[in-house]
Amino acid sequence: MTSAALDTEYDVVVIGAGPVGENVADRTRAAGLSTAVVEAELIGGECSYWACMPSKALLRPVVARADARHLPGLDKAVQGPLDTGAVLARRDVYASHWKDDGQVAWLEGIGADIYRGQGRLTGERRVSVTAPDGTEHHLTARHAVAVCTGSRAVVPALPGVDGAHPWTSREATSAKEVPDRLVIIGGGVVGTEMATVWQALGAQVTLLVRGKGLLPKMEPFAGELVARALTEAGVDIRTGTSATSVHRALPDGPVTVELDNGEQVEADEILFATGRAPRTDDLGLETVGLKPGSWLTVDDSCRVDDTTWLYAVGDVNHRALLTHQGKYQARIAGAAIAARAAGTPLETDRWSAHTATADHAAVPQVVFTDPEAASVGLTLAEAEQAGHRVRAVDLDLAAVAGAGLYADGYRGRARMVVDLDREIVLGVTFVGPGIGELLHSATVAVVGEVPLDRLWHAVPSYPTISEGWLRLLEAYRDA
Amino acid sequence: MTSAALDTEYDVVVIGAGPVGENVADRTRAAGLSTAVVEAELIGGECSYWACMPSKALLRPVVARADARHLPGLDKAVQGPLDTGAVLARRDVYASHWKDDGQVAWLEGIGADIYRGQGRLTGERRVSVTAPDGTEHHLTARHAVAVCTGSRAVVPALPGVDGAHPWTSREATSAKEVPDRLVIIGGGVVGTEMATVWQALGAQVTLLVRGKGLLPKMEPFAGELVARALTEAGVDIRTGTSATSVHRALPDGPVTVELDNGEQVEADEILFATGRAPRTDDLGLETVGLKPGSWLTVDDSCRVDDTTWLYAVGDVNHRALLTHQGKYQARIAGAAIAARAAGTPLETDRWSAHTATADHAAVPQVVFTDPEAASVGLTLAEAEQAGHRVRAVDLDLAAVAGAGLYADGYRGRARMVVDLDREIVLGVTFVGPGIGELLHSATVAVVGEVPLDRLWHAVPSYPTISEGWLRLLEAYRDA
Repeated sequence: MTSAALDTEYDVVVIGAGPVGENVADRTRAAGLSTAVVEAELIGGECSYWACMPSKALLRPVVARADARHLPGLDKAVQGPLDTGAVLARRDVYASHWKDDGQVAWLEGIGADIYRGQGRLTGERRVSVTAPDGTEHHLTARHAVAVCTGSRAVVPALPGVDGAHPWTSREATSAKEVPDRLVIIGGGVVGTEMATVWQALGAQVTLLVRGKGLLPKMEPFAGELVARALTEAGVDIRTGTSATSVHRALPDGPVTVELDNGEQVEADEILFATGRAPRTDDLGLETVGLKPGSWLTVDDSCRVDDTTWLYAVGDVNHRALLTHQGKYQARIAGAAIAARAAGTPLETDRWSAHTATADHAAVPQVVFTDPEAASVGLTLAEAEQAGHRVRAVDLDLAAVAGAGLYADGYRGRARMVVDLDREIVLGVTFVGPGIGELLHSATVAVVGEVPLDRLWHAVPSYPTISEGWLRLLEAYRDA
Repeated sequence: MTSAALDTEYDVVVIGAGPVGENVADRTRAAGLSTAVVEAELIGGECSYWACMPSKALLRPVVARADARHLPGLDKAVQGPLDTGAVLARRDVYASHWKDDGQVAWLEGIGADIYRGQGRLTGERRVSVTAPDGTEHHLTARHAVAVCTGSRAVVPALPGVDGAHPWTSREATSAKEVPDRLVIIGGGVVGTEMATVWQALGAQVTLLVRGKGLLPKMEPFAGELVARALTEAGVDIRTGTSATSVHRALPDGPVTVELDNGEQVEADEILFATGRAPRTDDLGLETVGLKPGSWLTVDDSCRVDDTTWLYAVGDVNHRALLTHQGKYQARIAGAAIAARAAGTPLETDRWSAHTATADHAAVPQVVFTDPEAASVGLTLAEAEQAGHRVRAVDLDLAAVAGAGLYADGYRGRARMVVDLDREIVLGVTFVGPGIGELLHSATVAVVGEVPLDRLWHAVPSYPTISEGWLRLLEAYRDA
């Protein structure tokens, strides 16, 4: 076989076959564009094997047990520990046992060609793939290359960190055993969710947070309520502290973390949940004038600035590091690629088929802790910073009949941020047990820009937690 | 004390102090109108003591246990029966132990005057109240009388029914003991919810349904999925059968139901869940030219047809027999009463402050069975009957990642009914575990008349059950 035989031309080449790359390919294939998908690891990506799926599989029984504990008549049955082996085995199922046959079949089913190996740009519209067996494929994209390589966990370069074999989100979601003691660095989504899981499965968790509180990107009460519950569950939360060094003397021995306040924490495993970096360092970006290791800046169609053919979709463009938002971008980028390939003018209005407007205005997120924390759109601080004339309306969710019925001793809170000029909702945050599915009502309201006058006609079914919507509207009216 | 001393004039007289009457009074008081509220039973009404609150308190541990049973690691802990005493005691708490002190304090807090006793119209804008001690109060309403007396359960006049001491929804939600055998007549919301509760608490429930299936007002799959789960829980469902007579020989003895197919069912208690009748039979309607015992026909401001001063709000107007919808009407009727009292023109556009448009287009309902069944807006059949050009999009909710994560072996279904001319959603039905709070997203979409093009930007958070929205949109697009 000559190397020429390995040169192939496609309409579109997608690098990265996580949910984002899969969705780009789905849309370009639906438009009749030949599409190659390049992946160096498992088809299905981080979300399927080391993030959303396994983490939520681990969290669900923890949260369901917590809810049951607040229901007299059921509470006594669930005082004992979870069956860790069964919980981990269920997690393995939802992580597809880290096998990607199902995802491969799906991609093949839509008619995309899969290339296994590291994909690298070698120039404009050109991608090389180094397969595991060393074979080199040269792909040319007639219309577009979409970089969907996502992000990886950042482990800070602390003294001793290499020898400490730290966990990142990957190890934390795929661990086969419960450590006796787990120290977690970082109080964002990964830190709080993994503290919830591993404490419930029997670890003594210490959560070290540099800032003042948890979940710093949400309204302040979100982190406060989650911190209170984690503390009650036995997690040792230390805020305003940073690790200065990490030390593990023996591979099977304990790890010691030195803190900037002079304290030490000893644990059996250490998890860094300290942010993400773009997976663009080994992509050949330098061959097209871009900087390896950088986030890729894109317009609202997800096309990389100053290019006509390169798209960056999902985490890698740093607009919203969430699977569902990356999939949203993928649908839009795929439609934009198809439109440009067909020579059709792009729709450029807000909320059109080719503009990822929600990235700016309506990114939803559910943190699957106990209590759950969910938000969409702008926080009060973000709305004020953006120059909107706003009012925040707050609600103690425990005052809602459906909340008390859901769980005795219900603790929760909601905030609605109202644009006073347009009388629409710019953002909503719910924190409390059982509110995860409620978030989408806020997402529809924010995205639909449904006026408050109209929202009064959206009657919440009694007695659900969604009645909080009525209370928020009343509080706004009566303020 | 002369009878003249008991004559009092108010701006507004409200007959019936359930949630609906309370909300009318809240709005008229907020508008500065003096308001009397008349109630013959407990302030707080059916919902607080014999319907929503106690039924949902009874259902919640049943449903939470069912969910936990589908989560390996937690499932084995909840195989045993519920602690019936604890479940009933919790129900008593949420029914406020059938005491109305809290509600009285609330009504007094808004400055409404409470009259205990049977209220009856005695002519235009005149209401008499016969207090329990025989005292007669004569109230005059300067502006409006609002009838908010609700509905009562209908017990069909079968041979033997009087001596059988049947349960209605009141006894079914307030019972202090679990009958060994319970026969329920009627497969609507009350029948299915009470079958769920009492079977789970240890009764052998037989559910007799005249029609072909359960929950006949919802999309057909709702009743099918609930029937399947009830059957698996041990309920004996018999469809296409009617009771022809009921017989209880001894007060403490069993009750026997004769069916039209010749069969007999023996049980310890019998519940009639066979519909509602308006509580208008002893209201003095004849003094103002209306027919006692009839539903009261109203316009969109809830004013009774052919009157200038009489309003009928909640169940009694037969628009939508649901607490939350009655409260919605109450807010609108209260605003309309206040506007007319002030001589302000009424807003008569659809979805305005004085028009209960949602009664026609967007009545939400959650049935708190296992699985939950929830719907808003029009079913496919209703939409077709109303002359809309529509398409129904169906979804197996088990295909949604968040559903499987919620409970192994997830069974659920969704339908979205799309108006093809306007490309908006006319109705949505969700059936499945954990979908109760998801309904409000559909309510906002239907009420907001948010176009499908825009709904694509309402990104469901991954992995929640709300991702079903994305799948519905995809199914519509790809059909």
